[in-house]
Amino acid sequence: MCVFQLRARPAATVPPPRWNQPGGERHTEVVTALRIGLAQVDLTVGAFAANSAMVSARVAEAAAAGAQLVVFPEMTLTGYMPEDLVLRRSFRAASRKALTDLAASLAAAGLGDIAVVVGYLDEHQGARNAAAFIQDGSVVARYFKYHLPTYGVFDEDRYFTPGSELTVVRFAGVDIGLTICEDIWQDGGPFTAARVAEVGLLLNINGSPYERNKDDIRLPLVRRRAIEAGAPVVYVNQVGGQDELVFDGDSFVVAADGALLGRAPQFVEKLYYVDIELPQATSDASPVVNDLTVRRTIAPLPARSSGAAVHEAEPLGIAGRISDEEEVWGALVAGTGDYIRKNGFSSVVLGMSGGIDSAVVAAIAADAIGGSRVYGVGMPSAYSSDHSKSDAAELAERIGAHYEVVEIEPIVRAFVESLKLTGLAEENVQARVRGTTLMGLSNQHGHLVLATGNKSELSVGYSTIYGDAVGGFAPIKDVPKSFVWKLAEWRNAEARRRGQLPPIPQNSISKPPSAELSPGQLDSDSLPDYELLDAILARYVDEDAGFADLVSEGFDPALVRRVVRMTDAAEWKRRQYPPGPKISLKAFGKDRRLPITNRWREAQDADEH
Amino acid sequence: MCVFQLRARPAATVPPPRWNQPGGERHTEVVTALRIGLAQVDLTVGAFAANSAMVSARVAEAAAAGAQLVVFPEMTLTGYMPEDLVLRRSFRAASRKALTDLAASLAAAGLGDIAVVVGYLDEHQGARNAAAFIQDGSVVARYFKYHLPTYGVFDEDRYFTPGSELTVVRFAGVDIGLTICEDIWQDGGPFTAARVAEVGLLLNINGSPYERNKDDIRLPLVRRRAIEAGAPVVYVNQVGGQDELVFDGDSFVVAADGALLGRAPQFVEKLYYVDIELPQATSDASPVVNDLTVRRTIAPLPARSSGAAVHEAEPLGIAGRISDEEEVWGALVAGTGDYIRKNGFSSVVLGMSGGIDSAVVAAIAADAIGGSRVYGVGMPSAYSSDHSKSDAAELAERIGAHYEVVEIEPIVRAFVESLKLTGLAEENVQARVRGTTLMGLSNQHGHLVLATGNKSELSVGYSTIYGDAVGGFAPIKDVPKSFVWKLAEWRNAEARRRGQLPPIPQNSISKPPSAELSPGQLDSDSLPDYELLDAILARYVDEDAGFADLVSEGFDPALVRRVVRMTDAAEWKRRQYPPGPKISLKAFGKDRRLPITNRWREAQDADEH
Repeated sequence: MCVFQLRARPAATVPPPRWNQPGGERHTEVVTALRIGLAQVDLTVGAFAANSAMVSARVAEAAAAGAQLVVFPEMTLTGYMPEDLVLRRSFRAASRKALTDLAASLAAAGLGDIAVVVGYLDEHQGARNAAAFIQDGSVVARYFKYHLPTYGVFDEDRYFTPGSELTVVRFAGVDIGLTICEDIWQDGGPFTAARVAEVGLLLNINGSPYERNKDDIRLPLVRRRAIEAGAPVVYVNQVGGQDELVFDGDSFVVAADGALLGRAPQFVEKLYYVDIELPQATSDASPVVNDLTVRRTIAPLPARSSGAAVHEAEPLGIAGRISDEEEVWGALVAGTGDYIRKNGFSSVVLGMSGGIDSAVVAAIAADAIGGSRVYGVGMPSAYSSDHSKSDAAELAERIGAHYEVVEIEPIVRAFVESLKLTGLAEENVQARVRGTTLMGLSNQHGHLVLATGNKSELSVGYSTIYGDAVGGFAPIKDVPKSFVWKLAEWRNAEARRRGQLPPIPQNSISKPPSAELSPGQLDSDSLPDYELLDAILARYVDEDAGFADLVSEGFDPALVRRVVRMTDAAEWKRRQYPPGPKISLKAFGKDRRLPITNRWREAQDADEH
Repeated sequence: MCVFQLRARPAATVPPPRWNQPGGERHTEVVTALRIGLAQVDLTVGAFAANSAMVSARVAEAAAAGAQLVVFPEMTLTGYMPEDLVLRRSFRAASRKALTDLAASLAAAGLGDIAVVVGYLDEHQGARNAAAFIQDGSVVARYFKYHLPTYGVFDEDRYFTPGSELTVVRFAGVDIGLTICEDIWQDGGPFTAARVAEVGLLLNINGSPYERNKDDIRLPLVRRRAIEAGAPVVYVNQVGGQDELVFDGDSFVVAADGALLGRAPQFVEKLYYVDIELPQATSDASPVVNDLTVRRTIAPLPARSSGAAVHEAEPLGIAGRISDEEEVWGALVAGTGDYIRKNGFSSVVLGMSGGIDSAVVAAIAADAIGGSRVYGVGMPSAYSSDHSKSDAAELAERIGAHYEVVEIEPIVRAFVESLKLTGLAEENVQARVRGTTLMGLSNQHGHLVLATGNKSELSVGYSTIYGDAVGGFAPIKDVPKSFVWKLAEWRNAEARRRGQLPPIPQNSISKPPSAELSPGQLDSDSLPDYELLDAILARYVDEDAGFADLVSEGFDPALVRRVVRMTDAAEWKRRQYPPGPKISLKAFGKDRRLPITNRWREAQDADEH
């Protein structure tokens, strides 16, 4: 009946596994159909109560949807990444307690017979990045992450002791292997062991941060692992922002032959479910594979599926690829909105100059928390053009934001005269008076200040520290200027497509960029064309290319030297810049750790080394 | 003759090894005396040419002093720590080239017959933290660091592939084993292998950052390793500052029985030399110990020692312990001076409020670069007391610094009126006008701005971001307020001891601390007594103690809750604070990595979790 009922669902959403493919041959006889929930959810670091309550609510949803097993992301209970909180004994104890409390409360709520896999922080001969298989009010089995990433934004060797066992839980007669995030990115380890142990299904729970086009890498990778293990893989990732990281979801299921069975959309928080036919376990062997032991556990019988009830969960379809602009916009809105909400703010304030950067940041904020909670401030200086002021006002109008003008000129004059400032010092004072103005309004009214700098400016130091750099969060700090324009075009086009008013004034997009800190100043006076600049920066900053590499790729040596010098010299400023969502291969922040005191010069000069 | 001549030196500086001690018995027959140079030098990250030139000069000094072997610190050629520069192929190639160029230039300079051990970055199946044994113009042998620290400020698993061989060089008939820094801090590995391989001498080259009382830990540790290996250990550490790290030197030599043969003073850059009698090698075995293979190499014959010539090198005596205050002051002066010099500044500017923090920072800067290159700015507000102004002027006078007064009141008024600011927002504007003033003077005159915040303020967020927090470097950011007073007392006492004018006005030390941002304001209005506050912070910040720990230790729960809350809430501000020298077990910065978005509350409240 269970099987019948499941077979009865439209094949469209869930094509049956193709056992006649490589990797699948082993299990051809008896199959069991399971309905599995993929909880693509948003977590908050350290919010044990809130994270546990969310799990309980989603498990109830899954029950209503007739699922027998629900899978949550990596570090579900602690949130990810907790960073040095892991070093605190009190935090580790709280995580262990949250797990046992969750198991008990699920059972108390009549949800004990559904199997639940959650990530948490455990402590066993060291701190562990762990996954627990919960059922009937207790922890049936646990798994400790085997591969610990220590590159990019990850420092897991700093925190965790690696696991030495592949945990296999026999559930409804199916052998289910537990794995965590990086386990799927590295060769060897759990997936190799899984094939030898003849596992029937692999779960991989993730805290996998968004990067442009990363979704194009994940699927082929997981396909390969599924084929390697000879078993289907259920890949579950979280959504939402945590400081500089944004998680995009993109959860999916692949068959033993690597066929895509279902894929969730990015940046959508929802419980999805999938029906999948799985082979009955035939082996009880507990082999040792490389340095991994296979540990087997038997779970209680699963809940009988009853898909009848009304529920919010959604059958897992196959979400299509979205455009690069749409994907990035989604990441910036999610990252900015979560930073605001999770840090207890309900409104933001930013300087609106009429330029493209502040326009895009304002539009992102409006999409994240609503235009009525966005406060724009125009702070024209003696060098601000008239269109700057009108463009800023029009932007505010289009996105439904508040807008006021503050005259900074008298204050700037007072500084310049009392300190006898000239040139760059005078230019910077304008920016710093603006920064102090925004912070004053923030202190007075409780708004979070958003910084509007982009990655190109941040790279070459084309910003004023304590001036336009002030803020609690910087939504486009990892977006190259040339892509900021693309985002604006896309967002306006998307609005037109939806029959809405395009948020960004065309004039802000089309006019030549200028800091307007001196008469008739244009970015192009001191910087190369942004397309060219960004091409160099993508190689130098994101990919660690050297001077020789860039020159051999055809870039002008003098220009490369200049760009590299400017980028190196701005390191101290970047250190004091607010966090912002990572969307690139290498974002400024914990992802790129360079010394400030640094005499290395890519463009070799005898005088320097 | 060589041996005779060496025996002829005063035994006082170098007591002969006591072979009749545990660990020493093996080598009783033939001994060779070697004169070894310990290069306790200051390096600069990325300055290959400068670092190599320094090595050549020191090797020449060592030759003049009749040394046969000179030992330099970890990562001599690249400087330490290069952080993500290691990920750049161009940088790795430059390091390898610098090594071969150095070997050739030493030979060309007639210094080929002296053996030189330098640290560098190598590339061999991954990046390696390496040591090279150079002689006669070529690299005789190299060693790859086995234990890679990945905790605290260290991220070496992020960068390096660990070594798998203990390198033993037979030099003058003595088997010399090469090890690097962390190798001596972890059990197992090279020191265990060294005993089995019957090594006659172990070199340990370091980039070991200063921490209060760390020198008290190093010596017993190295004694233990020497006994474990059954061989003397020559421990060489660098001096000087690199961003947030300060290296204190403290190089020393320990006999096979753990007896201290000589110890260099902290924070002094100098080439020291020691004469030591070492056992002739008797074994040629190349055992495999755990996962380490022993690789043996034979070096050319050493130079004939001729100690006649005049030279700057100094025989290694046994430096005594210095007081905590003197040690910390030395670290702050070294760290601040090196940051200024290595980043190309020749002067500093800071706000002089007449308070203890700015007074101590000014005195540190004066000790580091001379008072004539320190520019103090008095920026009294409506709430500044008269004594504040006079104390600031007196401080400048005492340390020979420049001093000017800038009236900020009109500018503050302009902000407050145009933005209608009250309370905290008004207080912060005063601090930000000061910050903008200092940055304006910095931009105009090229001074580095020094921030004057201490660790207690930084912990609880008792500072104004973009206000008193502005600066390129923050000399006392890791110094608790209660210790800032001790430093001031010590520095003044030290001046009196030397018959000099005490730099810090007594009034700045004795008056109650105040931010002077509102009428009659005192720190004690909003903060507990600093001794008490610092006691809590030392446990919470430096040692990761939890709420329950602190309460069980007798601290008032309500106070602990408040302090912990304030500390957690200030994380976003600390992220944008300038770097400063690490002197504690755990400094803010890369040493302590906490999320900003963080709902974990040590003091548990139902509403939060």
